[in-house]
Amino acid sequence: MSNNDIEWLEFAKTLAMKAGEIMLEARENSTFVRDYKMDHELVTSTDIAVDQFICRGIIARYPSHAILSEESSPHMDLSALATDVPVWVIDPIDGTVNFAHGHHHVAVSIGLYIGDKRILGVVNAPFLGECFWALKGSGAFCNGKRLAVSGAQELRSALVATGFPYQKTALAPIVERVSRILHHCQDVRRNGSAALDLCWVAAGRLDVYFESVKPWDMAAGALIAEEAGATVGYYLPQTLVWPEVVNGEGLLVSTPDLYDDILALVNTTI
Amino acid sequence: MSNNDIEWLEFAKTLAMKAGEIMLEARENSTFVRDYKMDHELVTSTDIAVDQFICRGIIARYPSHAILSEESSPHMDLSALATDVPVWVIDPIDGTVNFAHGHHHVAVSIGLYIGDKRILGVVNAPFLGECFWALKGSGAFCNGKRLAVSGAQELRSALVATGFPYQKTALAPIVERVSRILHHCQDVRRNGSAALDLCWVAAGRLDVYFESVKPWDMAAGALIAEEAGATVGYYLPQTLVWPEVVNGEGLLVSTPDLYDDILALVNTTI
Repeated sequence: MSNNDIEWLEFAKTLAMKAGEIMLEARENSTFVRDYKMDHELVTSTDIAVDQFICRGIIARYPSHAILSEESSPHMDLSALATDVPVWVIDPIDGTVNFAHGHHHVAVSIGLYIGDKRILGVVNAPFLGECFWALKGSGAFCNGKRLAVSGAQELRSALVATGFPYQKTALAPIVERVSRILHHCQDVRRNGSAALDLCWVAAGRLDVYFESVKPWDMAAGALIAEEAGATVGYYLPQTLVWPEVVNGEGLLVSTPDLYDDILALVNTTI
Repeated sequence: MSNNDIEWLEFAKTLAMKAGEIMLEARENSTFVRDYKMDHELVTSTDIAVDQFICRGIIARYPSHAILSEESSPHMDLSALATDVPVWVIDPIDGTVNFAHGHHHVAVSIGLYIGDKRILGVVNAPFLGECFWALKGSGAFCNGKRLAVSGAQELRSALVATGFPYQKTALAPIVERVSRILHHCQDVRRNGSAALDLCWVAAGRLDVYFESVKPWDMAAGALIAEEAGATVGYYLPQTLVWPEVVNGEGLLVSTPDLYDDILALVNTTI
């Protein structure tokens, strides 16, 4: 933890809270329009507005930092960056389908990493009035209260969250994993926001979360889970498309005692 | 709609709001203990406390009415009742697993029917600050605002909620249905409260909900969905274990335009 880290964290929290206000206002006034990306993923005008607000804020304050954002720079080449450049990883609205449908489980996610180290993560859920954050080595918090993972030790009593891809190809192994979870665990939740599901593991509300997601879905939440005591790993082999610090391909996060058992359960190659 | 109906509705709303306060207080103070029923279903001391509060209230005010409650009278013989006896159908906490895990998607559900007619339903979600209600023929409301189902017309854009049984037998057809939904619809939600999922169809937040549930899970929510314009039907043949007015076996609720398509999709006999 350094003075820089704390300044960055306060800056990220301020951005995330203001981003939450933009979302609240857009829903209150129904002032957003829907569109679909090339891969059939929903995007709204509020995703774009929040993204622009956050990116402009970062550029104005830290012009030398890099930004990886779901909406404005999803294809940037991270490997071309010097390893000491701070990289902000932004999902302006994680849970866009939920946002557009009036659900509460929606968040803005802001993570920061340097080289191979996660530095901080902020996940603000404005419709639930909860802001989660973590600083590497300093623990994880929700609305100022320190978080700790649940003490779940057995699959049979584990509440497991997952998600499903927008693309409808290769669903067979995903359905197979859900089937195994249903047979061996307490129950499944499919809430619709990866960033927030990770925070809910941190808060002990979920015992396991697994899914293949993008860097912006997990950059903040993975650190928050880790700092609350979760084990963060992978149930799929690494493809090296993304640096490991922001790799969400086959992400598996659970209480430490559950990790080996849940890995064995979902680690199928069918 | 009669004077009786309105009096009953106001009474049910008052009970549901006070029940919500009991839940809020129990979570705030962590003053509940967990137990498991014979079929491995979780129950907490707050389920019991809320059940007793509601049942005592009904008995004191309407001693001639009958009560079907998940916690205190789940096995009562409804067929032995005269057809003009008002029957209150109570789920003190719908979403007990969510309640015990600190989630927001939790509700108290109070329904009332007479003979083969649903009269009223109240579903209060205290952790989300939302109370849903409907009176037969008078529409459905959330916090005083009239509800209407979404205009969803195509499976491809439909957000579909479902649930899974606590018992781990006969999961194959359930997994098969989820697989079909994932292939043909926008996405799946598994929120963990049937009563509230039905209200969310009423509010247009979900386009479809299907699951095999018990009378107390759906007695209130099915009327709320119906009064908001949803089509309420079944994807499984009726077994006549329960009167149709409170039968949740194979319950399928959707926007009217989606109903035939979603029925064809989930109506599998494997």
